[in-house]
Amino acid sequence: MIETPSLVDQYCHGVLRTELGLGTFEARLARTEGPPAPGTTLFDTQTGFALRRWCPPLLGLEPHCPPARYLARRRELGALEAGRRLLRGSGITAYLVDTGLPGDLTGPADMACDGDADAREIVRLELLAEQVADTSGTVESFLANLAESVHTAAATAVAFTSVAGLRHGLALAPEPPGPGEVRGAAGRWLAGRPVGGPLTDHVLLRHLLWIAVSSGLPLQLHAGLGEPGARTDRADPVLLTDFVRATAGHGTDLVLLHGYPYHRNAAHLAGVFPHVYADSGAALVRTGARAAAVLAEILELAPFGKILFSTGAHSLPELHVIGARLFRDALGRVLGTWVAEGAWCLEDAQRVAGMIAAGNARRVYGLE
Amino acid sequence: MIETPSLVDQYCHGVLRTELGLGTFEARLARTEGPPAPGTTLFDTQTGFALRRWCPPLLGLEPHCPPARYLARRRELGALEAGRRLLRGSGITAYLVDTGLPGDLTGPADMACDGDADAREIVRLELLAEQVADTSGTVESFLANLAESVHTAAATAVAFTSVAGLRHGLALAPEPPGPGEVRGAAGRWLAGRPVGGPLTDHVLLRHLLWIAVSSGLPLQLHAGLGEPGARTDRADPVLLTDFVRATAGHGTDLVLLHGYPYHRNAAHLAGVFPHVYADSGAALVRTGARAAAVLAEILELAPFGKILFSTGAHSLPELHVIGARLFRDALGRVLGTWVAEGAWCLEDAQRVAGMIAAGNARRVYGLE
Amino acid sequence: MIETPSLVDQYCHGVLRTELGLGTFEARLARTEGPPAPGTTLFDTQTGFALRRWCPPLLGLEPHCPPARYLARRRELGALEAGRRLLRGSGITAYLVDTGLPGDLTGPADMACDGDADAREIVRLELLAEQVADTSGTVESFLANLAESVHTAAATAVAFTSVAGLRHGLALAPEPPGPGEVRGAAGRWLAGRPVGGPLTDHVLLRHLLWIAVSSGLPLQLHAGLGEPGARTDRADPVLLTDFVRATAGHGTDLVLLHGYPYHRNAAHLAGVFPHVYADSGAALVRTGARAAAVLAEILELAPFGKILFSTGAHSLPELHVIGARLFRDALGRVLGTWVAEGAWCLEDAQRVAGMIAAGNARRVYGLE
Repeated sequence: MIETPSLVDQYCHGVLRTELGLGTFEARLARTEGPPAPGTTLFDTQTGFALRRWCPPLLGLEPHCPPARYLARRRELGALEAGRRLLRGSGITAYLVDTGLPGDLTGPADMACDGDADAREIVRLELLAEQVADTSGTVESFLANLAESVHTAAATAVAFTSVAGLRHGLALAPEPPGPGEVRGAAGRWLAGRPVGGPLTDHVLLRHLLWIAVSSGLPLQLHAGLGEPGARTDRADPVLLTDFVRATAGHGTDLVLLHGYPYHRNAAHLAGVFPHVYADSGAALVRTGARAAAVLAEILELAPFGKILFSTGAHSLPELHVIGARLFRDALGRVLGTWVAEGAWCLEDAQRVAGMIAAGNARRVYGLE
Repeated sequence: MIETPSLVDQYCHGVLRTELGLGTFEARLARTEGPPAPGTTLFDTQTGFALRRWCPPLLGLEPHCPPARYLARRRELGALEAGRRLLRGSGITAYLVDTGLPGDLTGPADMACDGDADAREIVRLELLAEQVADTSGTVESFLANLAESVHTAAATAVAFTSVAGLRHGLALAPEPPGPGEVRGAAGRWLAGRPVGGPLTDHVLLRHLLWIAVSSGLPLQLHAGLGEPGARTDRADPVLLTDFVRATAGHGTDLVLLHGYPYHRNAAHLAGVFPHVYADSGAALVRTGARAAAVLAEILELAPFGKILFSTGAHSLPELHVIGARLFRDALGRVLGTWVAEGAWCLEDAQRVAGMIAAGNARRVYGLE
Repeated sequence: MIETPSLVDQYCHGVLRTELGLGTFEARLARTEGPPAPGTTLFDTQTGFALRRWCPPLLGLEPHCPPARYLARRRELGALEAGRRLLRGSGITAYLVDTGLPGDLTGPADMACDGDADAREIVRLELLAEQVADTSGTVESFLANLAESVHTAAATAVAFTSVAGLRHGLALAPEPPGPGEVRGAAGRWLAGRPVGGPLTDHVLLRHLLWIAVSSGLPLQLHAGLGEPGARTDRADPVLLTDFVRATAGHGTDLVLLHGYPYHRNAAHLAGVFPHVYADSGAALVRTGARAAAVLAEILELAPFGKILFSTGAHSLPELHVIGARLFRDALGRVLGTWVAEGAWCLEDAQRVAGMIAAGNARRVYGLE
């Protein structure tokens, strides 16, 4: 009843084009610390069941067929062709791609081509800083090159993203660090760092956030579930409250990614602060048959013009499919129920569905 | 199927009788930091949609009509007449009115008259202290006048309310502050304070709470969502656990207002401590079509004799209507489903509905 | 539609065989600080209503009959016979019994006999340590006897359980305490302790946990709701993250009991760490008609091979019945809905139901 003809995936990654066996495929269904427990499989999860519901038909199989059969068919088609069929069957019309993950993942151009869709790049701040560090000789050149790199990236990227919350927690001091503080932190980090070493210093993470805020490009902040073994509560978006207030009025939008299991807190911030937006997508890939329930919780406090769709998918095009199909199905189910109950009228529901699926993202990211 | 013929709104404010334009009306639909983001409107929220569902018919319009049309009709009738029609259409038979908000809001007498209902006053402790401070010359007279004022208010008010949780957070030291500590804090506050200056000192906030506890009148504590830009987690009712234990056996009931998104914690305290009650209303105004889901979460742990209804509404009589209608609809839907599933019997459901809607409040506040 | 022919209750206690009056019976329906508030009764709770739904028919009465009538019938049959009828009507085929609660509760052998089921013992670590302390003269003999006792218990018990989270909170230092630290803590505790005095020292609590980890037997950790007046947030399973990571690879499974209202965090840990399992049962006894909603939240992130059923019941066999019936009904309702929506296929749903109801527990605890 409720239609979402177009989907803008406001946060995802590219896919692998290499062939995957049952074990390597399974390992990419979830982010875990270690292999599945004896006697269990990651296919026996909401993500696994959602995959078996939505993906087999796109490759010519019946829904819910066994994993081994699905993977046999996938290999028969080849990873490239299977990927094209999956992405094109997802319903996604634009991919905003975070290119900051390691591994041989396709970039925006390939995603556009494989998926017959638009694609734009999201630049991951921490990776940018690490790349600049790899090629800068002194603290001064590092800081100058960093500012220049962010500036340059802002000219072509559609957004910045930061994993400061996953690396340090979101309880960051809200104000920008002073120049001396930044120089000191940069000096210590550069001196002790091997090539490619990750950025985890909280002063530099905050410095990066504020450079990004000054660029005017939307800034996506990871919150809630992230690194598998990390303390989830340290990425509760409520911890961002002071940072959010400090960045109000700078003209830069903040997008809270994921959020689950603290998505109600993300929705609250999106309701209170004009420049804050809440992600409604990535949690759905993980919660599968519960997608409508989780989405409905986000729809409690977040204004309907402040909610964005994403899949958060990476490596497997199946995850893009699941994210999109679960979202579309959940949105239709939730809004359709409210229309059936008389709480909403159909015209409003259609309008809101279009906003969350694509319209809000087009406005926030300046997509035509 | 489940009837709630009578509703006692155990916590609300008065309404504005001035005419409101589209912008000024919209600004009162939600508490935000700043105007709506470009391209968005606060009418596109659960509160806005609930308003469009429930209020237009009370003014002779069809449900879900556009906001501009609704406001034109409201102006045509005049704020006073529209307010009377709305309040009388809410189903609320008694209003307990917190008179401690600034602005030209109607008091209990006007609410009773406009709404054709009973109305009683709730006294806000912090405002009382500020008023006493405005007219007291010394620390000694301030403290004596404060005790006297609370005592006097207790003779006519139906309850006290405190926003200590919103001003300082609920992680307050549980025991009453000592006399010397109170005198010191009062001296510092009075010395530095301009006329009308707000009370935020945590020693005085605790002192106030304990004076109120000694009065024997029910004490309402704001928890969960409150000031729009405040850290929500600092008002998690779980932080009140030690204060709650310290006040057990004093003969004074504590009522946890709002609670959302930590309403399950409020419900838990209501289940564990005989003198604690949980509010089930104010969250519903904000969550609209999700009211039944939120109410059901409160109904998990809170004993049915410990749950109270409120709207938390202020300024717009529309918010009283929404609060009441959403509650009534949600309660009927939740309990009706449990009856249909065989989990509850109809007779119990009717009885519990009457308790939550009005009976519990009548008992706790001593209303006849 | 979804069948669960066999139920393994992976965590419960024994029952009282003494006759109970209305007041003494009611007091065991919930864990509270003090008697019910005036004008309220603990029968007006989800637990009370669930009892009235499920238990009267097992004693030959109609569902939802008044509490006084139910208790009259219970006395007429006698506590022993009523208990046998109730336990045998619960559908539970194996009880894992924590024998560490005070009071005259039946042990595993009686539970097996009364319930016509299998029963095994779970050993409570803190009680074991207290018993060893009662009979050990020196620090050295205490520590040696403790290690010996755990070792001996591991030979016959099916699991260990710890209430460290309820006594100290789950924010325990993750690593094992050093030998000197343990000796010092033991010396202080033994010196100051009356016979029977409870173990609350955090060094010794951690020492116990690590002895248990080294035994290889599954270790059950209480999380979420526990002691009625305790700060619930201090038992949030998210606080166990570092301990969980520290124990990975030792070959010992951790089972997070209860979890509610932080059950989503428990489910997340079960999803991330191979050796972590989540309990899906004890919360249901408290939330009654909401059991399906709470169970569904656990089913979001926890892999289906990592979820275990329990009742957490003690003293009243009615609580074993409620826990089992609510679980069975909720599981059937949740999975059945997903099948009806096409999200899951029936075959998968049947298989998962069997895993959660019994299969996972059989594998984890090595029951044949």
